[in-house]
Order: sequence, then C-alpha cells, then structure tokens
Amino acid sequence: MARWAPGASDRLQRAAMELFAEDGYEATTVAGIAGRAGVTERTFFRHFADKREVLFAGGEQLEAAFVGAIADAPGGTSMAGLLAAALDAGGRVLQDGRGRDFSRMRNGIITANEQLRERELLKLAKLSHAVTAALVARGVPQVTASLAGELGVLVFKTAFARWIAPGETRDLLELQREGLAAISDLTRAETV
Amino acid sequence: MARWAPGASDRLQRAAMELFAEDGYEATTVAGIAGRAGVTERTFFRHFADKREVLFAGGEQLEAAFVGAIADAPGGTSMAGLLAAALDAGGRVLQDGRGRDFSRMRNGIITANEQLRERELLKLAKLSHAVTAALVARGVPQVTASLAGELGVLVFKTAFARWIAPGETRDLLELQREGLAAISDLTRAETV
Repeated sequence: MARWAPGASDRLQRAAMELFAEDGYEATTVAGIAGRAGVTERTFFRHFADKREVLFAGGEQLEAAFVGAIADAPGGTSMAGLLAAALDAGGRVLQDGRGRDFSRMRNGIITANEQLRERELLKLAKLSHAVTAALVARGVPQVTASLAGELGVLVFKTAFARWIAPGETRDLLELQREGLAAISDLTRAETV
Repeated sequence: MARWAPGASDRLQRAAMELFAEDGYEATTVAGIAGRAGVTERTFFRHFADKREVLFAGGEQLEAAFVGAIADAPGGTSMAGLLAAALDAGGRVLQDGRGRDFSRMRNGIITANEQLRERELLKLAKLSHAVTAALVARGVPQVTASLAGELGVLVFKTAFARWIAPGETRDLLELQREGLAAISDLTRAETV
C-alpha cells in the first residue's frame, strides 16, 4: 500500500484518486476534492492547476530521473548502459515513490478517459524527446539518440503495463531490465 | 512524383490532397473535393466514408502487408527475420504504392491537425497489435510478441520520419533496415 504523508498535497491527491474511482473522473469537482481532503479550494489551487494535474503531477520528476541518470553516467558508458541507467532511475521514481497500487489506480482512471489517454501519450512523447536531448548532449548522434529515446520509452511503458497487471509481483526495475534484454535478443539475426 | 490512375478513387484522393494543402483540412468539404475531381458527392461516398478517410484509406493494406509477411515466413525464421520481413513488406506498400511525395504531403496535413494526429497514433497502435497477434499465431509467447509489435512500429515510424524528411534520398526499406540494426547495436552492453 502507498503511504501518505500528512501534507495537503498528498491529502488532496489521495482524495482526488478516491473520488475519481468512486464517481468517475468527469463527475469529480475541485470543490469535492478539497472537501474530502478537508482543505479549501484555494488550497487545492496552490498545489494543482486543475483536477487533471493531480494525475500528471510527478511526470516532471520521472523525466528528471531519466535525464539525470544519462547526464551523470561516467564518460565512456555504453549506449546500453545509458539506457539501463535511465530506466533504473525512472523506474525507481515510480516504484519507491507512488508505488504499484497508486500507479494501478491512476492507470485505470486514465484508461477510461480519452482526453487523459491522449495527455498520457503526449507525456510519454515528451519523455522520449527529453531522453534524446540528454543523449545528444553527451555527443550521441541525433539519429541514434532519437531511436534510443523512443526505445527507452517503449521499454518503460511495456514494463510498466506488466508491473501493474493483476497479480504481478516482480518489481518494475526487473521487468524493465528483462524488456531491454528481450529487445537485444529479438533484434539479433541468430535468435530463433 | 506519384502517378495517378484514372479511376475515380485516385482522382478523389488527388483532389482532396490538393484542397487540404491549398485551403487547409478543416475548410475543405466533400462537395469541394467531388467538384475538383469532376464527380458527384454520391460518387465520393461510394469510395470514402468521409473526408478523413481519404487520408487513412490504405492503412489496411499496410497492416495486411506486415501481417502477411509474418504469416508467410518459412518455419524456423528468427524473430529478427520475421520483423525484417514484416518491415520490408510494409515499407514496400508505401514506397511502391503511395510514394514519398504523397506520404510527405499527407504527413504535413496530419501533423497540422490534432484529431488527425490522434487518429494516426491509434492506427499505429492498431498496427502494433496486429503484428503482435500475427507473431502469437506463430507460437511466439505473448510478452515477446507484444514487445516485438511495439518495436516493429517504432522502427517503421522512425524510418518513415527520416524517409519523408526534406532532401532524403535513401529508400524506406534501407532506412528501416538501418534502424533495426541500430537498435540491435544500441541494446548490446559492449557497444559504446
């Protein structure tokens, strides 16, 4: 179970998730969220621009983890090493931060709403571009960096989908590493 | 330059592309397209459900090429071989069918419109699922097949973006093969 710090931001997030799950995303209002969290609407707007941002706050932290791992890797780290480091750092943000139960609940809400699905896709595209830019900053050629950015997000999102699947117990980092290894295998001509 | 057969469907497609480029997608009407092509609106609707479908007709052919290449590959073909065969077959549909100029023009229209971009993303997701299903039908485990489906679309879309870039002269099949090889390289730990 995710643990909730006593801060207003966390209380608001928990209240919003409960209401989204109970009443649906569309029917939930900022007033309702603030009421459930025991704060004023003004307090809500000090933490989030709107109810949608309750779901997408944290995306910057994920992106910063990916980008930071690439920037901070020792010189001479292989491309595979850079990708693995970025995925480990990003995976840790979700696994040790929000946690699996929160991620699962959030995913259910997003999947049920077309606009939220679209925003999620845009966030993933942004993450891919950020990874690409971080690689280019290390001197990786644009074409390779762009492919690696797309590949990193592909590994992340497929591992994430497995991680939140019902009954899955392996951790996100393990699933990401398995995905990266599987792609390495399945692009080798000698593999059957 | 793409060549246009004298059939009403091709004339309608050409007329629509011209009007989308001249007046914008939003401002173009079915009546205008039919008029430019010298046919009635009724004829338009015998070929396309609406003006949007003028842009997306042909997607089924692309998907069929991907899926057919996987289904028809000899037993024992490696995963890399199946992916390469699917990409070659799909790439050929665009390269020898619509051609680069048409694809470039179409892409410009789609990129400028949010709803069209979204539909294009959904089409790519559908293509990924179709590739996955074709691999599962050959006995590939679901997790591997799903990753391969995503990977195939990733290679396709990144090669496609390079193919239609200004000044690019290499063919789509070559760019796809290069992308597949690059992914193989950049997931190997020993690569710098």
